[in-house]
Amino acid sequence: MSESSLLKAFRERAPGHPWVSIGPGHDAAVIEWKADNDAAFKIDSVVEGVHFVLNGEGAAAPEQVGWKAVARAMSDIAAVGFEPVAVAAAVAIRSDITEDFALRMFDGLADCCRRFGCAVAGGDISATGGPVTVAVSAVGRGPRGGAFLRKGATPGDALFVTGELGGSLAGRHLSFVPRIAEARRLRSLGVVRAMTDISDGLAADLRHICDESGVGAVVEEAALPVSADAYAQALRGKRPVMECVLGDGEDYELLFAVSGRDAAKLTKEWDMPVRLTRIGWFVAREKGILLCRPDGTVTPMPTVGYEHLRRSDMGDRRK
Amino acid sequence: MSESSLLKAFRERAPGHPWVSIGPGHDAAVIEWKADNDAAFKIDSVVEGVHFVLNGEGAAAPEQVGWKAVARAMSDIAAVGFEPVAVAAAVAIRSDITEDFALRMFDGLADCCRRFGCAVAGGDISATGGPVTVAVSAVGRGPRGGAFLRKGATPGDALFVTGELGGSLAGRHLSFVPRIAEARRLRSLGVVRAMTDISDGLAADLRHICDESGVGAVVEEAALPVSADAYAQALRGKRPVMECVLGDGEDYELLFAVSGRDAAKLTKEWDMPVRLTRIGWFVAREKGILLCRPDGTVTPMPTVGYEHLRRSDMGDRRK
Repeated sequence: MSESSLLKAFRERAPGHPWVSIGPGHDAAVIEWKADNDAAFKIDSVVEGVHFVLNGEGAAAPEQVGWKAVARAMSDIAAVGFEPVAVAAAVAIRSDITEDFALRMFDGLADCCRRFGCAVAGGDISATGGPVTVAVSAVGRGPRGGAFLRKGATPGDALFVTGELGGSLAGRHLSFVPRIAEARRLRSLGVVRAMTDISDGLAADLRHICDESGVGAVVEEAALPVSADAYAQALRGKRPVMECVLGDGEDYELLFAVSGRDAAKLTKEWDMPVRLTRIGWFVAREKGILLCRPDGTVTPMPTVGYEHLRRSDMGDRRK
Repeated sequence: MSESSLLKAFRERAPGHPWVSIGPGHDAAVIEWKADNDAAFKIDSVVEGVHFVLNGEGAAAPEQVGWKAVARAMSDIAAVGFEPVAVAAAVAIRSDITEDFALRMFDGLADCCRRFGCAVAGGDISATGGPVTVAVSAVGRGPRGGAFLRKGATPGDALFVTGELGGSLAGRHLSFVPRIAEARRLRSLGVVRAMTDISDGLAADLRHICDESGVGAVVEEAALPVSADAYAQALRGKRPVMECVLGDGEDYELLFAVSGRDAAKLTKEWDMPVRLTRIGWFVAREKGILLCRPDGTVTPMPTVGYEHLRRSDMGDRRK
């Protein structure tokens, strides 16, 4: 049973509503709210042992669990280029979790909301015998028909990414800043044709854009912005650094398409502290998704990336 | 560590947003969306061993788990008198859960949405070592400033309840129909002053209305609509039937206040198949919350009801 086949079955069963213009299978759903604006709507969860551990090496502080739970949902709101308005959280805790732990987790959750001027509008708490789980639902608002989707890239478009990639398990996956401000700036520049956030890894998330847009892509390996953590993780895991950059996931950076004409404008006008890198371009679908090595050879993009139901716990991801 | 103290701490930490007119601590949050309408926003979850069991007596079918998860969130949208538009679900499953189980759970989830013309707008699936958990977030739409809240009841108002109470664990808790249609009818009649849905039991949820409205109440025991299940559960558990009616919870009926003048009108004009009963009236806060026995004696309302973190599993609820 794979996550993607289950999600596909879930989508096939999902009824629609006249106002829901974008349903399951995107970074966030879009609800046509009124003549001049839409709502983005997303649910996401973090699970102990899958998205964080509480003991041993790399253990998350309670505040980090709350922060990450909200930041992941916010990252999806950013991916469609909307502004977060409110979140609600459903928390499941084990009986041995202390009140202090729970309160510190709430603090992290609230801190992330506060940073982006977003409300915590509701919550639910259950005691379970299982892992600590925090499901967060987020509502955002944006212009009518203006959500950035995974579809919309065309051959010839340039491929950009924010920030630096790889090695997020070294710690960044617990403290990353969702790219709300960067998505806002991109909207104001009016250049985005298709966008997603990188949660499963560059290779897997680029494939989502290509599949939805019906295009192929070429990524220039030499152009990829490699995080310092990626080098450290590669050294430690005795893995090629590019495997970390392309497949580690949990980068929560924005990956997007810009027309060839707008690409130069974007590079010139980008004025945010977060790095912005042009890493390739889109091509016809038949060409597939390709990786151009520094030596000039071209290979199919490796199929690396994270699928939750294939790994039993986070320990596997560290090997 | 009690659920209510944790929820209180959660609320104290919750940042606000200028558009969020009603935050945590209500049946659903309310977001001021545009000049003429508001959004209701709710997250709620069902947890194996707390809200359903999968083995032994009273085991839920997979479809029932999905149905209940959505129906609980819908009940909260009904409680504020809004129309459901979309839900999103975060599902956590154990590794021994089969694909067939998951698909049947999705079917139940989708069926409940379809029944109320509501979309499934998103989903998230995680594999965990713990209990099956389904968190559902719902978005509803209603008139600007028109959400029914727990506050708004005044002394002299009549207290009404839909349906019949008690004994839902006999099976109704897995298959109940959220009172969306009844809430819509009540809105069209224009009579509701304060409303909630009964999830923790009549005694506990009436207390919520009284606390928020700053009033007391008198409930006439003889008027209470007793479900057939309540008699069965009372017999089985060797408990007084009134304990089942007042404290069992999971009735998911609407409990609401109507002015004395409108009470007669409502009784006369009520044309829905679901029973509607006037069960008491609101009084000054100083009088407290009272139960008027059939023999004419008056006692304080017993403090029965369900608090999730106080019970280790559902088995406790059956005793």
